[in-house]
Amino acid sequence: MNAPTALSHLAPDVHQRATPDELIAELQQRFGAQCSTALVVREQHGRDESVYEVPPPAAVVFAQSTQDVADAVKLAAKYKVPVIPFGVGSSLEGHLLAVQGGISIDVSRMNEVLAINAEDLTVTVQPGVTRKAVNEAVKSEGLFFPIDPGADASIGGMTATRASGTNAVRYGTMRENVLALEVVTAQGEVIRTGTRAKKSSAGYDLTRLMVGSEGTLGVITEVTLKLYPLPEAISAATCSFPSIEAAVRTVIQVIQLGVPIARCELIDHNTVRMVNTHSKLGLREENMLLMEFHGSPASVKEQAETVQEIATDFGGNAFEWADTPEERTRLWTARHNAYFAAIQSKPGCRAISTDTCVPISRLADCLLDSVSEADAAGLPYFLVGHVGDGNFHFGYLIDPTKPEEHTLAEELNHKLVARALSLEGTCTGEHGVGLHKMDFLLTEAGTGAVNMMRTIKRALDPDNIMNPGKIFSL
Amino acid sequence: MNAPTALSHLAPDVHQRATPDELIAELQQRFGAQCSTALVVREQHGRDESVYEVPPPAAVVFAQSTQDVADAVKLAAKYKVPVIPFGVGSSLEGHLLAVQGGISIDVSRMNEVLAINAEDLTVTVQPGVTRKAVNEAVKSEGLFFPIDPGADASIGGMTATRASGTNAVRYGTMRENVLALEVVTAQGEVIRTGTRAKKSSAGYDLTRLMVGSEGTLGVITEVTLKLYPLPEAISAATCSFPSIEAAVRTVIQVIQLGVPIARCELIDHNTVRMVNTHSKLGLREENMLLMEFHGSPASVKEQAETVQEIATDFGGNAFEWADTPEERTRLWTARHNAYFAAIQSKPGCRAISTDTCVPISRLADCLLDSVSEADAAGLPYFLVGHVGDGNFHFGYLIDPTKPEEHTLAEELNHKLVARALSLEGTCTGEHGVGLHKMDFLLTEAGTGAVNMMRTIKRALDPDNIMNPGKIFSL
Repeated sequence: MNAPTALSHLAPDVHQRATPDELIAELQQRFGAQCSTALVVREQHGRDESVYEVPPPAAVVFAQSTQDVADAVKLAAKYKVPVIPFGVGSSLEGHLLAVQGGISIDVSRMNEVLAINAEDLTVTVQPGVTRKAVNEAVKSEGLFFPIDPGADASIGGMTATRASGTNAVRYGTMRENVLALEVVTAQGEVIRTGTRAKKSSAGYDLTRLMVGSEGTLGVITEVTLKLYPLPEAISAATCSFPSIEAAVRTVIQVIQLGVPIARCELIDHNTVRMVNTHSKLGLREENMLLMEFHGSPASVKEQAETVQEIATDFGGNAFEWADTPEERTRLWTARHNAYFAAIQSKPGCRAISTDTCVPISRLADCLLDSVSEADAAGLPYFLVGHVGDGNFHFGYLIDPTKPEEHTLAEELNHKLVARALSLEGTCTGEHGVGLHKMDFLLTEAGTGAVNMMRTIKRALDPDNIMNPGKIFSL
Repeated sequence: MNAPTALSHLAPDVHQRATPDELIAELQQRFGAQCSTALVVREQHGRDESVYEVPPPAAVVFAQSTQDVADAVKLAAKYKVPVIPFGVGSSLEGHLLAVQGGISIDVSRMNEVLAINAEDLTVTVQPGVTRKAVNEAVKSEGLFFPIDPGADASIGGMTATRASGTNAVRYGTMRENVLALEVVTAQGEVIRTGTRAKKSSAGYDLTRLMVGSEGTLGVITEVTLKLYPLPEAISAATCSFPSIEAAVRTVIQVIQLGVPIARCELIDHNTVRMVNTHSKLGLREENMLLMEFHGSPASVKEQAETVQEIATDFGGNAFEWADTPEERTRLWTARHNAYFAAIQSKPGCRAISTDTCVPISRLADCLLDSVSEADAAGLPYFLVGHVGDGNFHFGYLIDPTKPEEHTLAEELNHKLVARALSLEGTCTGEHGVGLHKMDFLLTEAGTGAVNMMRTIKRALDPDNIMNPGKIFSL
């Protein structure tokens, strides 16, 4: 961890609470070798992909069952000590950091696929199952789970952050694709939200309340997900554009025409260059759309023709098709590695990621002005985006030994968020608030709405032990 | 109102709270002619399509703006008197009944379409706008709003009950189609939930918490909805089947194959007969599927051929197409009038509606046994269903002067719900809990989850003034 201390970004109530020795002793008694206080283990659970540096949790419990989670939470509740659920550690926003001390509950060993209901297009998994493992498990049934945030994140973590990614433009986000949950509450009680019915009007939508609650309302111990039949035909394509604007105008028209495109990603020319270097791809180093079409062969052909026509109108060229699974995997792996490709392009750097999302008609306004600002600032960056959803990410590459670069990156981020909010968008399309966007959330949602969130949090977790200090200050 | 008093079905805490004269005086001073205490007006706002008989509210405020709603709620809060939002009165579950007294806030005059953002496929409306009015307003932009619960319900009411209906199999429910809300809280404060961005991870999903909260957490004063491009091609078809089972097996296979069918409705042979009598239709009096396909001409053709093939395999016959808008309107109007057709088939009767929804693989198990039970009981009924979603409605037709018929209908309903829950389904797919399904909700969700709902309710509405006595007892 060589990032500069960034606690100044945190809410005023951030403070390390003491973890009593009695709690550690009780945890060790209950969990034996499943409970670790080794520094290396604690440090591994005390960081994520964010830039913050915070002392690690006091202990890590490796839960193997819902009962383990419930017992760990009950013990923590007894001593009013924070608990922080941990999946694979791929959060970008500081969700996993023990800003108020406490214990980490690692659910990665809860990695069983509990039930595949192929006939109903549902699967029920433990929270430590990763998205790739879900797909591996259901592939032989001719099914897939589309939500793909890039990282091979855990389903628990994806649920907690309301993740989405490349396929969301067609299949929605975790919001639309989680049917039901099992959750351990702040009191250590096990509840179930939702059923396997496709729709329901049975009381408050606790499922959706938990999705995106970032561990602050409970620990997710089981998730029932929607699945989809593997498309009969899949075709991926890249198309190069003379400008980002041309690429973005193409996307806007594709979406507005209602083309059911499955993936629609922008990669700017800088980032294509980084990806080429990292993944040895030989892509044309121009601004690029990377797209995928799903459906029957006829429908895929129809979609592709429509998009190609629109792209050509905007000066798009070099439409290249990737029809074999191998070619597609190569392209999408390269896309998913863009973050790492960028990090490696500037040795020793860290990335400050943005995550704004705006209505599709505002995408060009939001994106182009922010590109100009970033270019003018002179800070290297990568730019990728789930542009079909109006969502994109700048990653400003900062030298962590130079506070002025960090400041500059945050200034660019602030300007971008302000612009997105003025265009009726959101500060976070898919990464969550965590530590990084608490001020943005307040600006976006307003004091009244954030106070409503706080009221719910206080009611469900009166001792503020569930991942405290995230989303909002209390 | 000639239904038997059914307060015995209500929660134990049902009681009429007093409405102080001072509140009425303050309301009259603030609202003038917009506030009515006339018995006829109060009675009109004290009933819905449910079978319950309850004294009417003490006054009705006809709100014309968010400020009107906020002021009415603030006055009610001052005297700790219940407020019940009222749209068009089409609830089936007693949502609108003043079981604890109080005032009705009628939002039907808040019927402006505030903004059509055709480029973003969104529309923002006041809560009194009905679904047909939304469609009228956006038609010229080549767009439509798919959610169709049958009745021309208000968007506010549809949001509050998490409504869905015939198009949900393809387009989702209000859960998936509300982007953002303006809500007046129990304190009379105006908050906004969500933005016009298509997705967001910005804090708790207050939008989804409000969707389906049945007026118990706030009054909805503005709704931003998703829209869809009018399909290039639409085709409707009816197909008759030798048995309900044959029809249901066809549906299951259509859904499992991933055919993107837009509407897929079952109407049993009894109900077809009632509809024929009511709407002069001349449909074959057999169990029937009524379907609709949306898409490009090629895709509609492809879908229709697939479905026709499956139907034929199960003995379906007399596939009849309705390709003109007039024919389609005639068919769907008949479908929507099934409820009234049934009511008129037994003069003076009332209907006890069921609303179970199960995973599609369980549909046959759930439906067929319930049909046998209803047939054996000898009570006339209608049976219609959004079977593509696993959701269907029996309407047991009871003579309100015969308590034994009411009891028999409720017994059938109880058996059906128990069956649906044992098959991992829900007691209510789209009507909401209201007064009628509070016990079912407890069985379905469990005490832990319902207690979480209660905790949220108490925290956000400590004086229990927002539509009290609905969903759960406090």
